[in-house]
Amino acid sequence: MAETSAVTISPADLKSWASRIFERAGLPPAEAADAADVLVSANLRGVDSHGVLQLAGKARRVLSGAMNARPSPRIERDGPAALLVDGDNGVGMVVGAWAMRRAIERARENGVAFAAVRRSNHFGMGAYYGQMAAAENMIGLCGTNTSAIMAPWGSVTPYLGTNPLVVAVPGGIEGGLVLDMATSQVAWGKVEVAARAGQKIPLTWATDRDGRPTDDPNEGMRGMMLPLGGYKGYGLSLMIDVLSGVLSGAGFGTHIADFYLQADQPEDVGHFFVALDVSRFMPLPLFLARVEQMVSEIRACQPAEGVARIYVPGEIEAETAARRRREGIPLPADMVRDLRALAEELGEPFPG
Amino acid sequence: MAETSAVTISPADLKSWASRIFERAGLPPAEAADAADVLVSANLRGVDSHGVLQLAGKARRVLSGAMNARPSPRIERDGPAALLVDGDNGVGMVVGAWAMRRAIERARENGVAFAAVRRSNHFGMGAYYGQMAAAENMIGLCGTNTSAIMAPWGSVTPYLGTNPLVVAVPGGIEGGLVLDMATSQVAWGKVEVAARAGQKIPLTWATDRDGRPTDDPNEGMRGMMLPLGGYKGYGLSLMIDVLSGVLSGAGFGTHIADFYLQADQPEDVGHFFVALDVSRFMPLPLFLARVEQMVSEIRACQPAEGVARIYVPGEIEAETAARRRREGIPLPADMVRDLRALAEELGEPFPG
Repeated sequence: MAETSAVTISPADLKSWASRIFERAGLPPAEAADAADVLVSANLRGVDSHGVLQLAGKARRVLSGAMNARPSPRIERDGPAALLVDGDNGVGMVVGAWAMRRAIERARENGVAFAAVRRSNHFGMGAYYGQMAAAENMIGLCGTNTSAIMAPWGSVTPYLGTNPLVVAVPGGIEGGLVLDMATSQVAWGKVEVAARAGQKIPLTWATDRDGRPTDDPNEGMRGMMLPLGGYKGYGLSLMIDVLSGVLSGAGFGTHIADFYLQADQPEDVGHFFVALDVSRFMPLPLFLARVEQMVSEIRACQPAEGVARIYVPGEIEAETAARRRREGIPLPADMVRDLRALAEELGEPFPG
Repeated sequence: MAETSAVTISPADLKSWASRIFERAGLPPAEAADAADVLVSANLRGVDSHGVLQLAGKARRVLSGAMNARPSPRIERDGPAALLVDGDNGVGMVVGAWAMRRAIERARENGVAFAAVRRSNHFGMGAYYGQMAAAENMIGLCGTNTSAIMAPWGSVTPYLGTNPLVVAVPGGIEGGLVLDMATSQVAWGKVEVAARAGQKIPLTWATDRDGRPTDDPNEGMRGMMLPLGGYKGYGLSLMIDVLSGVLSGAGFGTHIADFYLQADQPEDVGHFFVALDVSRFMPLPLFLARVEQMVSEIRACQPAEGVARIYVPGEIEAETAARRRREGIPLPADMVRDLRALAEELGEPFPG
C-alpha cells in the first residue's frame, strides 16, 4: 500500500463529505449536517481531538445500532424555562444542537432557559453549542458528563468523567468569547493526540491504572486523568455530573457506557444547556460595548517576560478558524488513511 | 493591657451579637440578622476567612457611609426568569440574600431563574446563598466578582478578581453537596489567614507585586493571586466577571473599588444567582436517592495510599459545622481582641 500523505482540505468539502458519511450511516440529511458541522467546527478551531478524528467511531456506532440514526428527541417535562429532554439515544451532536435550539427559544420567551438532557451520547466539542447561543446574542453555557476516567480526589478508582464546562459570550472577538474546558488538567483528547503523535505527556496530566503519574500517553489512556488544580477540579467535575446526569435521569459516575469498550451499548450520556438572553439585562449594544471594553483592557495588560501577547478565552481558536477558513484544514497522514478507509467502507469518496 | 486569650463561643451568641453590631451600624433588624447569619455560617463551616473576621471592616464601611445601611434592592428588569437587580449599594450579604430569595421564588414559577445583581458589595461566603436554594430543594449556583488581584494569563497586571463559583445541591450530606471555589489556586482569605498566623505559603498560591511567585503571605497580599490550574482559572474568572459584572451593569475588571484601599467608595460589585427547581426535572425523592447513590459510590472508591477517607464537596465543612454547633466556634486571641475593640467602639458588649 502506498504511503498516505497529509492533505489540506476546504472546510466546506470536509463538512459536506462528513455529512454524506452520516447519511450513509442512516441519519436524515438535516441531522447529518448538524453532526458534521459540530465535528468540522472543531477542526476549524484547531480542536482536532474533537474533529473528524471521531467521525469513523460515531458512524460505526450508528451502523451497529448502538446509537439511534433517526431519534425523536422530545421535551418530557416543561418548566417552561426548565426543560427535561429525552435524547432518544441519538448521535450526541444531533441531540445537543436540538436541545440548545430549544433552550434558545425558551430563553427568548423567559429570559433564561435550562435544558437537562438524558439518553444522549458524546456530543463532540461543547464550544459549538455555546456559540449557537452567542450567535443569537445570548450567553450560552453547557456541560456534559463523559465516561469515568478521573478518580475522586484522594482515591485511585475512576468514577468521574473529564466533564467539560462551556461558557460562550457574544462580542469581543469573532465568534464571541468562548471558554471550553475539561475539568481534568487537560482534555482526554490531548492524551490521545499525543499517543498518535508518539509524544510524551507532562506528569501532571494523567496516571497509570494504579494511580501513579505517567508521562506515557498510552499508559495514561489506560489509566486515569488528573483533575484540574486537584480537589477543585474534582468538585467541579462532580457538580457537572449532577447537572448533566443526576438531574436529567441519564447515567452518571460509572453508569455511562464507555464509547470504545462498550461499543454495543447506549452511552446514556447526560448534558445541560443554558441560554441567557442578554437583552433582558441591558440593551445589546451596551453589553457588546462592555465586552469590547473588557477585551481591550485585558489586551493592554503588561505581558510577562517572554510573552508576546495576552489572549482572551477562545481567541487562539478564533484565529485558527479564520486561518483554516482561508487556507483549509490540515489533516495528518494517519488520519487521512483512516478517513479514506471509512470512505471506501461506506462508498462515499473522500474529497482530499 | 492584659493578654487576650482565645475563646470558644456559641454560634447563637456570636450571631446575635454580630447582628446587634450591624444594627448599631444602622441596619434594620431583619437585614442585620441576614448579614450576621452569612458571617457566622462561615465560621460554623470552618471558613474563618469569611466569618466575623470581616465584621469590623463591614460595620465600619456602613458607618462611614461607603455602604448603604438601609438599601432598597429592587428588580430593575424582569425576564420573568431573568432578573436584573439593583443592590442600592447595600451590604453584600443583605443584597445577596435578597436576590437569592427572588431567584428561588422565580424558579418555583418558571423552573429556573437567573438574577444578575449590580451596585452591591462583597457578599461574604458564597456557599451560603447556594445552600439557601438547596434548603428549598433547588440546585443553587452563584458567583461574584471581586476587586482585581489576579493577572490575565501571561500578564503581570492585576485585572481580575478571585471570582468564586458556587454550586449547591440538595441531598447527599447534611446541608447538601456544596462546591464553593475561588478561581484562584486558593482563596485570598487563605493568604490573609496565613499572614495572621505568621505562616509561609506554597509558591503556587501568589506572586509578589512584580509577578514573581512568593512564599511570603504579606508579599502575596501586596501582589497577585495565581489562577486555578493556569489558563483555565483565568478563563473561568473572566467568565464569572462577565456573568456578575459585565451583564449586570456593575463594575468589572479593575472597575471595582478595593474594599480596603478605597474604603470611602461604593465597590459596585456584581453577583449572579441561579436557582433550579429539581422537581421540574424528576420527583424530588428520586433525585435525592440518585444524589445519595452517587455519594455512596464515591465513598466506596478505593483510597490512595495514606488517605483515610474520600470526601464529597462540602463534607469537611458540614462536619466542622456539626462539631462547632455542639462545641462552639473557636476564635483565636487576636480576633477576640479585635472583636472586643469593635464591641467597645459600638457599645455592644462582646459575649465571649
